[in-house]
Amino acid sequence: MKQFNFEEHSHRRYNPLTGEWLQVSPHRAKRPWQGQQEKVAEAKRPPYDPGCYLCPGNTRAGGEQNPPYTGTYVFKNDFAALSEDVPGGSMQEGEFFLAKSERGICKVICFSPRHDLTIPEMDLADIAAVVALWQQEYKELGSLDWVNWVQIFENKGQAMGCSNPHPHGQIWAQESLPDEPAKKQKQFSRYYQQHQRPLLLEYLQAELHKGERILFEEEHFVALVPFWAIWPFEAMLVPRRPIAHIGQLSAAEAGGLAAAYKRLTILYDNLFSVSFPYSAGLHQAPTDGQEHPEWQLHMVFYPPLLRSATVRKFMVGYEMLANPQRDITPEGAARMLREQASVHYKARQ
Amino acid sequence: MKQFNFEEHSHRRYNPLTGEWLQVSPHRAKRPWQGQQEKVAEAKRPPYDPGCYLCPGNTRAGGEQNPPYTGTYVFKNDFAALSEDVPGGSMQEGEFFLAKSERGICKVICFSPRHDLTIPEMDLADIAAVVALWQQEYKELGSLDWVNWVQIFENKGQAMGCSNPHPHGQIWAQESLPDEPAKKQKQFSRYYQQHQRPLLLEYLQAELHKGERILFEEEHFVALVPFWAIWPFEAMLVPRRPIAHIGQLSAAEAGGLAAAYKRLTILYDNLFSVSFPYSAGLHQAPTDGQEHPEWQLHMVFYPPLLRSATVRKFMVGYEMLANPQRDITPEGAARMLREQASVHYKARQ
Ligand SMILES: O=P(O)(O)O[C@H]1O[C@H](CO)[C@@H](O)[C@H](O)[C@H]1O
Ligand SMILES: O=P(O)(O)O[C@H]1O[C@H](CO)[C@@H](O)[C@H](O)[C@H]1O
Repeated sequence: MKQFNFEEHSHRRYNPLTGEWLQVSPHRAKRPWQGQQEKVAEAKRPPYDPGCYLCPGNTRAGGEQNPPYTGTYVFKNDFAALSEDVPGGSMQEGEFFLAKSERGICKVICFSPRHDLTIPEMDLADIAAVVALWQQEYKELGSLDWVNWVQIFENKGQAMGCSNPHPHGQIWAQESLPDEPAKKQKQFSRYYQQHQRPLLLEYLQAELHKGERILFEEEHFVALVPFWAIWPFEAMLVPRRPIAHIGQLSAAEAGGLAAAYKRLTILYDNLFSVSFPYSAGLHQAPTDGQEHPEWQLHMVFYPPLLRSATVRKFMVGYEMLANPQRDITPEGAARMLREQASVHYKARQ
Repeated sequence: MKQFNFEEHSHRRYNPLTGEWLQVSPHRAKRPWQGQQEKVAEAKRPPYDPGCYLCPGNTRAGGEQNPPYTGTYVFKNDFAALSEDVPGGSMQEGEFFLAKSERGICKVICFSPRHDLTIPEMDLADIAAVVALWQQEYKELGSLDWVNWVQIFENKGQAMGCSNPHPHGQIWAQESLPDEPAKKQKQFSRYYQQHQRPLLLEYLQAELHKGERILFEEEHFVALVPFWAIWPFEAMLVPRRPIAHIGQLSAAEAGGLAAAYKRLTILYDNLFSVSFPYSAGLHQAPTDGQEHPEWQLHMVFYPPLLRSATVRKFMVGYEMLANPQRDITPEGAARMLREQASVHYKARQ
């Protein structure tokens, strides 16, 4: 009988960060695709769009006017999912009807006044300003005594539900620890109790040793495709030294995060010569007033594209009902990304 | 201060089936939408399409020819994610690199020879034939000694990654218990040990008592929107008496499942007068050779549409990184579905 081979045969991989499993079907990307094609919205955008509610000086849907900002700009979401003035309340009827009110604050961050840019095309100094704003918001929101989790994220591209191409991200701060970080909290705590080291930092060492899933190594940050990556080109940025949250980054390290953010998104854009959609964001220590030495800051990227600018991976029937499943190996994805030029394709045209 | 109100204020709800939480932002559906619009593929299809690889008599991408079938038709997926002849193998390096080979069988089921139909438009007797085939496949695949989980599901519509509109579903049978059912297994077992009753059956009683999330009640099956529904119009079909798996349904009950499947999907199609996309499937007892009195068969429906035929809910940034989040209440969704006519909109034109 044949030898088992991870590059060829179906298998399951364990994710020590969440305690969950991933199913891998390496050979499956060969199947023909007759399904939905994504729209490629590559029409050149103007630097200023009078119809964009995020451009400087324009009026937003909620009626407020943006200032003529020249750097980053942050404001409370006009249609926030969470709000501060939710009255407390809860419901508990037996084991089946359990609910509680949830307070929160939702903000929007414009990354740049320029309507036509995206992170990989922005100047490093301007991305560093975004990181600095993240640091400030994490600190300010996190210091509210009722805020226990600050979720910083970016939805990029129509395929990721982003309704405006103006470069921007979001921050949702709230009372409860959400489900995804709660899984990590559990795994990180257990590991830390046993080893007195953050799990993710130990994992980083193991990946650096292996090398096959590393995308690039910089002085302060490393980019890699995790062993258990769900999305075809999922990736992660991890600082090399113990950093529980973004507030602990030195100025040089914050600059390192900005540089890695730009470098990774350039690889993404170059892969299919398209503005690569993704959801990305920071996972870091809860802001519950405790020390969290078990946490290691990391920025995760979940991009949906699979084979080309127009063919995405659908996480549907089997994935929703049974188990996340991927069609190419994380190692293969890492190889493809590493092969990309480090200069943005548009800058080469 | 205002009173807390579930129809108005953000809150979190507990899902006792998985042990996870859902975040609800009732007011949020009011925000304007300038993002991606779904294509509405309502062009009338012919009953037979010479270019369709699922139509009777046609040749499939893998080269095989379909028989001139007249009812249902099942075959092994030509581009299967899982296969039977995967050699055994595993990897364990410390706590970070843990993987094992996975054997499985992936099948495709054509629901009808008619290219132009969907479940809500099919005759009841023909849907009953689909249910009968599910019973047979669950039994046959489940009786293989290495198969411990049989996942029966349907991806419907381009928005759900379905690459062919010919009415069909899939079955993936495999060695391991996947993550989603593993969560339910844990919750169901614990509840059963405490109460000697299946959790879901007790939950059904509680919902029947409340009434507000019930879509319809039939002799054998009830349709409801679960208290913790993630997707805007998520729903569930549950049999009224203890049934661990589809093999335990009497002929009358199997007919009841077919009828409820049709009735629910008619409500769906009528909601936005469009062929309503969804992923749906059965959750039932694992096929590991054990008795599973803790399990109650249920069919779940995860449809992506939110506000109209073209505006879907995106589970992206916040949802992927933090927590599933919905924009209308499950109770509101149940009301909207209950108001729909029981006759399919096409049959009324
Ligand atoms: O098997 P199909 O219909 O080609 O593919 C579809 O369903 C599968 C199972 O949910 C998914 O893995 C694919 O991403 C999806 O496109
Ligand atoms: O807030 P936005 O950009 O309008 O909305 C987008 O991101 C949110 C947070 O991930 C999601 O809940 C929405 O479904 C998505 O369309």
